[in-house]
Amino acid sequence: MIKQYITKLSARSRGFHIITQDVLRTINNGLPEQGILHVFIQHTSAGLCINENADPDVLHDFELFFNRLAPEHLAGMKHTIEGLDDMPAHIKAALVGHSIQVPIVNGRLALGTWQGIYLCEFRNHAAGRNLVVSVWT
Amino acid sequence: MIKQYITKLSARSRGFHIITQDVLRTINNGLPEQGILHVFIQHTSAGLCINENADPDVLHDFELFFNRLAPEHLAGMKHTIEGLDDMPAHIKAALVGHSIQVPIVNGRLALGTWQGIYLCEFRNHAAGRNLVVSVWT
Amino acid sequence: MIKQYITKLSARSRGFHIITQDVLRTINNGLPEQGILHVFIQHTSAGLCINENADPDVLHDFELFFNRLAPEHLAGMKHTIEGLDDMPAHIKAALVGHSIQVPIVNGRLALGTWQGIYLCEFRNHAAGRNLVVSVWT
Repeated sequence: MIKQYITKLSARSRGFHIITQDVLRTINNGLPEQGILHVFIQHTSAGLCINENADPDVLHDFELFFNRLAPEHLAGMKHTIEGLDDMPAHIKAALVGHSIQVPIVNGRLALGTWQGIYLCEFRNHAAGRNLVVSVWT
Repeated sequence: MIKQYITKLSARSRGFHIITQDVLRTINNGLPEQGILHVFIQHTSAGLCINENADPDVLHDFELFFNRLAPEHLAGMKHTIEGLDDMPAHIKAALVGHSIQVPIVNGRLALGTWQGIYLCEFRNHAAGRNLVVSVWT
Repeated sequence: MIKQYITKLSARSRGFHIITQDVLRTINNGLPEQGILHVFIQHTSAGLCINENADPDVLHDFELFFNRLAPEHLAGMKHTIEGLDDMPAHIKAALVGHSIQVPIVNGRLALGTWQGIYLCEFRNHAAGRNLVVSVWT
């Protein structure tokens, strides 16, 4: 059985943001005893991943790394009509991915101690982002 | 309940290709009202991801970026027996991933307006690629 | 219906390791006729992906590539308190991902001929790693 929830995250600044609680609020903490959580982002210039939930420096370092990996002035890039941050955003989104899955065990997300769900916002001035959250049992 | 479909995509040139319609044809558009679509590629030198479905320049820029990220003459690479494009193809495939999941809402794939499913073909002369498409409800 | 199994992989050296058989042992080879396998790693400095299962040179080349992509002395990195290998490990883990899904067809993992499940160990001296393995039908 699958339950689905659609939500719009409020606009975030460019960078990496921990959204574990936003996701849980979306489903009113309605976690089954056992199952899988699937979160899907309906955009091509933002992504989702799972990483450290503790030290804010990690978020800073992710942003720094990804900006160097896919900078805004790469020679030969053609898709510039939506701004210089747009094509790098597509690339970064393809690298981190558009969805995450987390097992639900004993009524809780079976995240490791240090794991949180990240929204990876790659545009400079994005509006809110739409998520489709599915819980199946 | 899971329905599974196995298909072979026709050979594509090296690069990024939108295959959303190929995937839907594979399941004869047999989408349930609610569920999840899972697409898995049975190869190690091609990948799947989700990204922009509109401007063909995006496909060009992806190819350019990934070729620079994992070029064919990286010092120290040992796995060259299958051609210089092979090891970079493995690396690129690990970066984009081997499968995608898309929620099905109201009988349709809940892709965002600008999202399409990409086949990422990383070999110079690949034959067709096998996909396992699963729809569960 | 979902069956879940929790296991701890023994400590591996830094690098890429094929763990397909470890995963199958975890579920006592209890594969249903039809379904999906989901493997989730409860850590932020190791990842999972699917890639070539044959030539050990591929494992070597992956390690070489990822070390160059996210080296240990990147200017500007702040999160160094847990060691110079820690922040690169977070980055690499975000790139390969924290989970993999494989269809189960006719009672077997529907991996391609050359595909295996990789543990990507990015720390220099990690202890064992916890996996949550889910099989749903």
